[in-house]
Amino acid sequence: MNNYHHRVSRRIKILRNHLRRNSPPATAILNRNNCLSYSPPELSDSNPITFDVTEMRRLTDGHNLDDRDRLFGLITQSGLFNRRELGGRVFVSPDYNQSMEQQREMTMKRIEYLFDRGVFRGWLTGDGPRDELRKLALHEVIGMYDHSLAIMLGVFLWSEELKQSLLMIQIPENSSSILHVNRLRSIGLVVQQMFDNARIPRENLLNSVADVSSSGEYLSAIKNADQRFAAFLSPLTYGRVTISVGAVYISKIALAITIRYALTRRAFSIAPNGPEVLLLDYPSHQRRLLPLLAKVYAMSFAAIELKMMYANRTPESKKAIHIFSSAYKATFTWNNMRTLQECREACGGQGVKTENRIGHFMSEFDVHSTFEGDNNVLMQQMSKTLLAEYITRTTKNEPFRGLGLEHMNKPWPVIPSQLTSSAIRSSEFQIDLFHLRERDLLRRFAAEVSEYQSHGKSKESAFILSYQLAEDLGRAFSERAILKTFMEAESTLSAGSVKNVLGLLRSLYAMMCVDEDASFLRYGYLSIENASAVRKEVPKLCSELRPLALALVSSFGIPDAFLSPIAYNWVDSNSWDLSQH
Amino acid sequence: MNNYHHRVSRRIKILRNHLRRNSPPATAILNRNNCLSYSPPELSDSNPITFDVTEMRRLTDGHNLDDRDRLFGLITQSGLFNRRELGGRVFVSPDYNQSMEQQREMTMKRIEYLFDRGVFRGWLTGDGPRDELRKLALHEVIGMYDHSLAIMLGVFLWSEELKQSLLMIQIPENSSSILHVNRLRSIGLVVQQMFDNARIPRENLLNSVADVSSSGEYLSAIKNADQRFAAFLSPLTYGRVTISVGAVYISKIALAITIRYALTRRAFSIAPNGPEVLLLDYPSHQRRLLPLLAKVYAMSFAAIELKMMYANRTPESKKAIHIFSSAYKATFTWNNMRTLQECREACGGQGVKTENRIGHFMSEFDVHSTFEGDNNVLMQQMSKTLLAEYITRTTKNEPFRGLGLEHMNKPWPVIPSQLTSSAIRSSEFQIDLFHLRERDLLRRFAAEVSEYQSHGKSKESAFILSYQLAEDLGRAFSERAILKTFMEAESTLSAGSVKNVLGLLRSLYAMMCVDEDASFLRYGYLSIENASAVRKEVPKLCSELRPLALALVSSFGIPDAFLSPIAYNWVDSNSWDLSQH
Repeated sequence: MNNYHHRVSRRIKILRNHLRRNSPPATAILNRNNCLSYSPPELSDSNPITFDVTEMRRLTDGHNLDDRDRLFGLITQSGLFNRRELGGRVFVSPDYNQSMEQQREMTMKRIEYLFDRGVFRGWLTGDGPRDELRKLALHEVIGMYDHSLAIMLGVFLWSEELKQSLLMIQIPENSSSILHVNRLRSIGLVVQQMFDNARIPRENLLNSVADVSSSGEYLSAIKNADQRFAAFLSPLTYGRVTISVGAVYISKIALAITIRYALTRRAFSIAPNGPEVLLLDYPSHQRRLLPLLAKVYAMSFAAIELKMMYANRTPESKKAIHIFSSAYKATFTWNNMRTLQECREACGGQGVKTENRIGHFMSEFDVHSTFEGDNNVLMQQMSKTLLAEYITRTTKNEPFRGLGLEHMNKPWPVIPSQLTSSAIRSSEFQIDLFHLRERDLLRRFAAEVSEYQSHGKSKESAFILSYQLAEDLGRAFSERAILKTFMEAESTLSAGSVKNVLGLLRSLYAMMCVDEDASFLRYGYLSIENASAVRKEVPKLCSELRPLALALVSSFGIPDAFLSPIAYNWVDSNSWDLSQH
Repeated sequence: MNNYHHRVSRRIKILRNHLRRNSPPATAILNRNNCLSYSPPELSDSNPITFDVTEMRRLTDGHNLDDRDRLFGLITQSGLFNRRELGGRVFVSPDYNQSMEQQREMTMKRIEYLFDRGVFRGWLTGDGPRDELRKLALHEVIGMYDHSLAIMLGVFLWSEELKQSLLMIQIPENSSSILHVNRLRSIGLVVQQMFDNARIPRENLLNSVADVSSSGEYLSAIKNADQRFAAFLSPLTYGRVTISVGAVYISKIALAITIRYALTRRAFSIAPNGPEVLLLDYPSHQRRLLPLLAKVYAMSFAAIELKMMYANRTPESKKAIHIFSSAYKATFTWNNMRTLQECREACGGQGVKTENRIGHFMSEFDVHSTFEGDNNVLMQQMSKTLLAEYITRTTKNEPFRGLGLEHMNKPWPVIPSQLTSSAIRSSEFQIDLFHLRERDLLRRFAAEVSEYQSHGKSKESAFILSYQLAEDLGRAFSERAILKTFMEAESTLSAGSVKNVLGLLRSLYAMMCVDEDASFLRYGYLSIENASAVRKEVPKLCSELRPLALALVSSFGIPDAFLSPIAYNWVDSNSWDLSQH
């Protein structure tokens, strides 16, 4: 016991010494052995540039490239955006170690700096599609620098929507107030403050949906609480558009960092005592990252189409925008979290370091899954709309129109009984297969709801009980819509290397959707043999995309300064300089 | 333009005022309408206690219940653990808003407090199974309070393993140094400090695997770098055991919080203007949470078995412990992150608040996926071991022994062609199905590797190319091993309510594994009809477990103070008290 006591006391003393120090002493330098040497991936023969990266970027950013680049430049060049040099390269991102007061002060200075340089010109006054798209593009760039700054600006500038959200808190009958309280809290209650100061006349508020009398009584033309709730949700569309697009850009940053790292980091050797292998030369590592790359390309096209719909909106397109923004918001934000998680793990402990952004993104962007409508609720709403559409059209014996459902008017697609590699890669087969799944799931869903109703359940209860098919359908609808925008983007191109590369990405996207959704086997859209052929195609597509990986992340057009140290010379940026101690 | 300038300037002024304030003003109180009223779930008839909660806790904690409770009490009663009252209830968890120095000071005080009360008695000197289990139990409780404190103690007390890890940094030939550097960094380099002070004689270090001469030259009896790497990894076993078990307890906290919240929070009504429905009464919400509950029960039994193996280890059991600790570490930590993500979303914005723990856990425990061996690498190692085992046994025509592979010696299991509900719920069918999957995947994996070799690939290359089957096999092995420990735990019980409840949980666990792994359909272990029957059984099991949910999370034996405000009266704890402003 004495001996034990002595040992423990000594150790506690040592630990206490440690705990009372502010920073650890430098005692070791990483040895630069084989696996710890850095060579820029651009210098390697295994990463040739075989297509026009500028053209690819134009396609995936879609609009306002010059405006984006100018803003990237304004942020990178200013001293206000926490520029610092690591491994011989400049990076910008907020200093999260500052106190809340310091961070707020910096946020204010950044807004003033950008304001003085005309970045926000037209954000309040402009309302044509051109202004909308410029605003969206710049908002995206700001979000790539700092999520909080983007939210702050969103809150600050799009006030109409916010006045509505805010009033909801003070309305007793409204069943969704907690959702909004959370939303307000997460942005630090800046809105409340704005509201206090703005003193918006009562009669200007909410008068499209409901009103509040001078005595504070709540009046609404919409008596049904659920319908009223849906009406309140509709102004959230703008938020869902920016969240969807923002998720795609954050995934791009994470993938650019992780893929660059995987092209320079080696681990283990295949032959005994042979050279160590680059992470991205492992088929399993390709399988982890390259499907995510294909997905983010696919989602880029869908995001651009959503923005175009939004910017050119008409009263007639309101419903479609609501559906697509719900579908994409849920799909893209879930995909973003999954991408960040995979990228974090693929970067090992380096992925956790704040300077490498990915771990920090996980904490920042997680909230988007429940922001502006919980993802699960949005997906259910979407399936409900599709069901209503289905019932209306089939009851009236009318053709389907809108939401991309026109395929329902055609004969059922036929899938070849034996799939070759080239059939698998054809867009005709892919869209046929996706149409088949969506159409059959919609039919099954309608049948199941109707079956429950015939056993005495109310329509709403029947819907709630059929949630499994509702979820499957929501996924089928979203993935088909994304695939369609991808094909449309390809169709604008003439034959050439960019079109070929996009074909590979589209096939990988489509085949991943198939491989990840057991519906294809469960409901027999693919035979076991065909599903096996699809599964075998995935590693082939990955290995064909491997040499293009560097060019594909370069095509994102994200400046180096917005990536992170492990995307570049991570050996230097991780070394401890003894001379500084 | 002037008008625009005026509007923007005014808004910037307002925003500036906001940003310069320290805390937001209180301007609103939540209105307590229907969906915002709290009633303790214990008072509801829909949450009856129908089984012995104490007995259930004894089974799932497995050992040292009194020691755990005493430590829970020491933490909850002391003033050192950041006790605070919210919604009329006391909670403990570290104050993460303190400066790093303050947090370190508090950590030190907490260690001294626990030391003075004999918590660490036997942690260094004891080495029998009884001491090991007590140490593990107390370490688990500390980890439930604070991850950092648990890591600090782990680092502090298990020095033998750490001396080895540390020396690796200074060894040029070793290819894994970055992994360890990260590991050390993440614990604030306390080890380096210990090492400096400890001045451990060179000849005591690493001599089981390798040595360093007085001139600093690295010597090892193991010439093959990969084998040496594997030898170095083996002392990490202890870490993998604690990480595995820790992941289960963190999932338990998150589920207890989220399920309690779902039993008191209402949203939307099914009938027009009807009463709002409790979240956990939605079948889709049950489907999100209850399978995770079943999994954490299953993993509890596997964790106990792993600890028993570890505490009673012999040279002969070393390999099995290595395999099971690798399998469980990967499976449990991935499952933990998934559980936390789902719970966070199921709590909405409330899940993000630090006081509610779940969001914070996501940041804290994410690193476990790559700690003590990257999960993907561990899973691959495991499949490699199974393959070697398979080749040895089949070549020598010997029966399989160990790792639970004895089923390979029996005739292939036969699955009934038409599954009834009671067949699906029988443990015989479940384990047969899991055995069938594992056995067939092992056979397919060996065949694919051999096929690659016959085309001139090296064994290592062939293995690397067969990663898809390796992953499927790793999952099949882990899930079968977990199911087996669950069945063994059940077999110790006499018939009664506890056994019945465990049967439901086991069936839900097994059927979720089936529903989530497309292998069952892809390789025909289940026909499409049978897979559909399994899928239909899942919501049934969920609805049968719904009334037991409260008792099932109470059975975790976690004190209220270790949960969070939304697990209790979240209306009160979220209200802003105007009188305080």
